[in-house]
Amino acid sequence: MEQTSTKTSERKARFETPSHIELKTVYRASDLAGFDPERDLGEPGAYPFTRGVYPNMYRGRLWTMRQYAGYATARESNRRYRYLLEQGQTGLSVAFDLPTQMGYDSDHPLAHGEVGKVGVAIDTLADMEVLFEGIPLDRVSTSMTINATAPILLAMYLAVARKQGVSWDQVSGTVQNDILKEYIARGTYIYPPGPSLRLCTDIFEFCSRFVPKWNVISISGYHIREAGATAVQELAFTFGNAITYVQAALARGLSVDEFAPRLSFFFNVHNHFLEEVAKFRAARRIWARLMRERFRARDPRSMMLRFHAQTAGSTLTAQQPEVNVVRVTLQALAAVLGGAQSLHCNARDEALGLPTEEAALLALRTQQVIAYESGVADTVDPLGGAYAIESLTNEIERRVFEYLERIEAIGGMLRAIEIGWVQKEIHESAYEYQRAVESGEQIVVGVNRFVVPEERPIPVLRIDPEIERAQVDALRRIKAERDAAAVSRTLAELEEAARSTENLMPYIIRAVEAYATLGEISDCLRRVFGEHRESAAL
Amino acid sequence: MEQTSTKTSERKARFETPSHIELKTVYRASDLAGFDPERDLGEPGAYPFTRGVYPNMYRGRLWTMRQYAGYATARESNRRYRYLLEQGQTGLSVAFDLPTQMGYDSDHPLAHGEVGKVGVAIDTLADMEVLFEGIPLDRVSTSMTINATAPILLAMYLAVARKQGVSWDQVSGTVQNDILKEYIARGTYIYPPGPSLRLCTDIFEFCSRFVPKWNVISISGYHIREAGATAVQELAFTFGNAITYVQAALARGLSVDEFAPRLSFFFNVHNHFLEEVAKFRAARRIWARLMRERFRARDPRSMMLRFHAQTAGSTLTAQQPEVNVVRVTLQALAAVLGGAQSLHCNARDEALGLPTEEAALLALRTQQVIAYESGVADTVDPLGGAYAIESLTNEIERRVFEYLERIEAIGGMLRAIEIGWVQKEIHESAYEYQRAVESGEQIVVGVNRFVVPEERPIPVLRIDPEIERAQVDALRRIKAERDAAAVSRTLAELEEAARSTENLMPYIIRAVEAYATLGEISDCLRRVFGEHRESAAL
Repeated sequence: MEQTSTKTSERKARFETPSHIELKTVYRASDLAGFDPERDLGEPGAYPFTRGVYPNMYRGRLWTMRQYAGYATARESNRRYRYLLEQGQTGLSVAFDLPTQMGYDSDHPLAHGEVGKVGVAIDTLADMEVLFEGIPLDRVSTSMTINATAPILLAMYLAVARKQGVSWDQVSGTVQNDILKEYIARGTYIYPPGPSLRLCTDIFEFCSRFVPKWNVISISGYHIREAGATAVQELAFTFGNAITYVQAALARGLSVDEFAPRLSFFFNVHNHFLEEVAKFRAARRIWARLMRERFRARDPRSMMLRFHAQTAGSTLTAQQPEVNVVRVTLQALAAVLGGAQSLHCNARDEALGLPTEEAALLALRTQQVIAYESGVADTVDPLGGAYAIESLTNEIERRVFEYLERIEAIGGMLRAIEIGWVQKEIHESAYEYQRAVESGEQIVVGVNRFVVPEERPIPVLRIDPEIERAQVDALRRIKAERDAAAVSRTLAELEEAARSTENLMPYIIRAVEAYATLGEISDCLRRVFGEHRESAAL
Repeated sequence: MEQTSTKTSERKARFETPSHIELKTVYRASDLAGFDPERDLGEPGAYPFTRGVYPNMYRGRLWTMRQYAGYATARESNRRYRYLLEQGQTGLSVAFDLPTQMGYDSDHPLAHGEVGKVGVAIDTLADMEVLFEGIPLDRVSTSMTINATAPILLAMYLAVARKQGVSWDQVSGTVQNDILKEYIARGTYIYPPGPSLRLCTDIFEFCSRFVPKWNVISISGYHIREAGATAVQELAFTFGNAITYVQAALARGLSVDEFAPRLSFFFNVHNHFLEEVAKFRAARRIWARLMRERFRARDPRSMMLRFHAQTAGSTLTAQQPEVNVVRVTLQALAAVLGGAQSLHCNARDEALGLPTEEAALLALRTQQVIAYESGVADTVDPLGGAYAIESLTNEIERRVFEYLERIEAIGGMLRAIEIGWVQKEIHESAYEYQRAVESGEQIVVGVNRFVVPEERPIPVLRIDPEIERAQVDALRRIKAERDAAAVSRTLAELEEAARSTENLMPYIIRAVEAYATLGEISDCLRRVFGEHRESAAL
């Protein structure tokens, strides 16, 4: 029980957050000089939304417990979704395999070995029908992690809704549709940025008219953070992208209050508990100020930053994987204290492979314990006013606006990505972190400290290679059975529309309803838009 | 991502903490009217110590990671201690078996079936020598959970130190020595309260002279809470007991600043994250005010409430035991944000039996992730200033002082225990909680919600029944080999001293050094003090 109390013998020479914000020994009221609770916090549910986007937050309704899942075939994934819903999950989140994300059918040579591996394989509307069998689309909200092929998967989802007899104004959910971060961090792009932004904006426009409860984009800091960005960079680059989307939609002639209420965000929730809570609070204030001051939004819903959070996959360790449950719990708590609208908790074995059913269940249980046993959902923004949290919130906001100014000076986010500046900034942070881990300055339990020599193997889910053959066979059957003329006609119409400035969503919907494949539709657009190659400069 | 925002449709009619403090929808600066940060918080390391007992807290040195462990024989427990120390544990915490706690040797008929079961069996100094073999007592701090037989175990510990050549002013640690809460909640008392208090005070006096770094008592709310008390009751009854100990020591003629710096506390850390953080902060302020204002302490160390925390065993579930890792993580975080000096994290299987080595290691890793990865140790009292936390801290303090006044009105804690009032208060809280669980108002994940039909068995540690025979054989050998005359002489001297008002510690030390057994020493005191029987009134 002894502790030294001399400042001279501290554990570190300097204490700082992962964003390199120096942490003081103690924060006091005096650290909040100039801070005006009325202006800078306001009431929850009111501008600038620092304390939350709804007046009573989780007292009214808990966040959506939305575990990202999907693997193998639509049949297998459907079984997992129904299991998770039975266990109390409250929203779906679909993971697609790489070929689906890249616009290749399961029988494409580039798809070989990847079918059903990191998510479910979807080739045609028939797969999507199976994926949601027994899941009424007016009773569940679905998030789809899909970008380059987002219009196709969204079209399939809407087609399934129609087949289920669910009208489009009743379906709710989110399509990731954030193509810009693919050029920065994730790499699943197909077309060059210009036409990609057009497709993205087509979804904005289409949904604002026909699918009013749909979140048209999930502007994602998650992958930027996973690539090694700091918390400040995560926000700065996400908002940099967001500004670009808003500008594109305005250029299309949409009014800001027409589409902005359906923009949503997707953030990472990382290890540094205090910085992460502050990050989410800062994010809300930054977005509100941007939307009102810069884009002249008038509808408060346009200023409300609603976000999904996922615990940081990159913090999980293959060593002593049980310890990941601890990390995920702390991260999930930070997301909830930060006011997330929906949350995915990583499974403890996600550093090793696809989560087993047992691990996926424990990840969901993590959310339920926080929701129902910890009491943190019973009052709004429980850490609001804390000297340390408010100081960090202020400082994160300041640094993000500074970054946004630098991006403006470069000529906007698209330009900053094209010249590789954004990537370089992230790369430097990633490198610095690696160096800190290697020097032991940053301790990772089980990796560079508290190592145990022998590891007990833990079970992970393996995808049967037979899956690919079955999927390819099914695709062949669909191709043989469908109305080939309807496919050719709808694809030709789509191609023609792509050469104009028309909104492509209605054409894509007609094509998927004719059972045109994801690969065929993508190829059709490849012919018009060309393919993006990463430039040597990057 | 949809949430209702109308206050009218909330999840509950009333949101409250487990202490029945109503939680507001949101806390604002205006909820802290009358709150004076300078007076009510002060600086960490300074009166009233609300923000922590040391100026830089964990920046200087982390809390002691002290996992409670002990089972079977001294040899087996020694092996577990050395394992935990190798894995980065920073303090020891010894669990004793029930016969050792109750003053019976392993060959006593009442010990049968209990030897080595809930802790290690200690009969003579020989066992204690084995227990600490290869563990230099000047390099580790040890906590011993022992009460009625505390003087004997402490005597043995000091004898081992002497044998290791470690001088008593170099040994540090804690002996629980909190006999009053045994009458309230835990039941391992031997003698009536009067002589028990005398033994307790003997330790205070002896250590203040000869073992200056030893914490002479660990005044324990833990078991009071486990018995069903609320957070407010936990503090109120713990301080009620503390006041009684202070009064007993003053009556012995000790001056407050002579012994008060070596008083320490042991609290539970339960599920309600916000109330628990606030509880620890309130506890420090209450103790500081009590010691300065009521007992006229002058030495700031007399006013510093230092505490060990253990996650709440009663919150663990036998169902879906993996989920316990989540509960323990949240509780441990609350303890750290509350400024604990040392911490035990329960193992996930403690609801089922003794923790396996694997589960014990994960519990330690939980502490290490919080310490080294979450960043919460890098600034002092990070939640200080939060409107909700400060409001709860104020309200808990107010209610605890109210309880202390009621105890005074009854005639003090000893009287309140004797008439069963304390027990009744706790019983009512326990009953209310059970009712809430049964009605489903209080959700327990895996118990009354989110139940899974089939449970996978998880391994627990089982104690080999052979252990008892081996322990009894060893005891026989010791008895045969020891100097019987020295045993008789030291026991006779002890008995005579017990009939006087002398401090018994030196006598007990001489008896254990002659290898008198724990049972023999306890019997000797039973002859003088008698045995306590729970009265029908309780």
